[in-house]
Amino acid sequence: MRVLGVHHVALAVDDLDEALDTYRRLFDAEVELEGRMEEQGVDAVYLRVGEGRVELVSPLGPDTPVGRFLAKRGPGMHHVAFEVDDVAEAVDELARRGAAVIEPGPRPGMAGKQVAFVHPDTLHGVLAEVVGG
Amino acid sequence: MRVLGVHHVALAVDDLDEALDTYRRLFDAEVELEGRMEEQGVDAVYLRVGEGRVELVSPLGPDTPVGRFLAKRGPGMHHVAFEVDDVAEAVDELARRGAAVIEPGPRPGMAGKQVAFVHPDTLHGVLAEVVGG
Repeated sequence: MRVLGVHHVALAVDDLDEALDTYRRLFDAEVELEGRMEEQGVDAVYLRVGEGRVELVSPLGPDTPVGRFLAKRGPGMHHVAFEVDDVAEAVDELARRGAAVIEPGPRPGMAGKQVAFVHPDTLHGVLAEVVGG
Repeated sequence: MRVLGVHHVALAVDDLDEALDTYRRLFDAEVELEGRMEEQGVDAVYLRVGEGRVELVSPLGPDTPVGRFLAKRGPGMHHVAFEVDDVAEAVDELARRGAAVIEPGPRPGMAGKQVAFVHPDTLHGVLAEVVGG
């Protein structure tokens, strides 16, 4: 497993369009990609903020992970995504290193990437994504 | 104001050494810089994770912003920092654009940088830092 960097920071929002307007207005953010990820139960937008990337995610319904997150904690920072060279390999390696990878492991993310998530319980309260080929 | 990118993602932790060990073990993180910021009431570590940067912050006491954050929400994602070319100018510009900049505005951050914070109330629950010269 090779960790290449921080791919994006994801923010859970109630209203995607409203949040989009805010990030455009305050930080000159530009839309890179928009999409629906049925498996994760979200509509998502990748924003470029300078050379960085922020993902806005809003739930497709209340009975989704992000829907439950919003009901419990309100809008805010949701996860940090680390880019890796190979997600399937990273999932195996992270498990060997003691991380709790959330099932089902690699699944389709934005832009044809594969993604997997590490449970906050093994990462000091932080939900982490690994994203890559 | 020019926004250059995501400078770091900051994570509030109870135990800096323990968290440091976790990020080294799971993501091959390397310590870039360690320091105490009395004004912000934290001990902090900048970690490089590939080309990205994660900041671990732990409070100097319970009656600090991060101490109160931990008491209320537990450890987890704390803020996202956007790098700008000029923090003083960014503070003025953000205020003009409708963001609530947290007083006292620009103050010393890590590595001789200046930093300021935008209140989560004007950013959909997200605490944002601007960091730069």
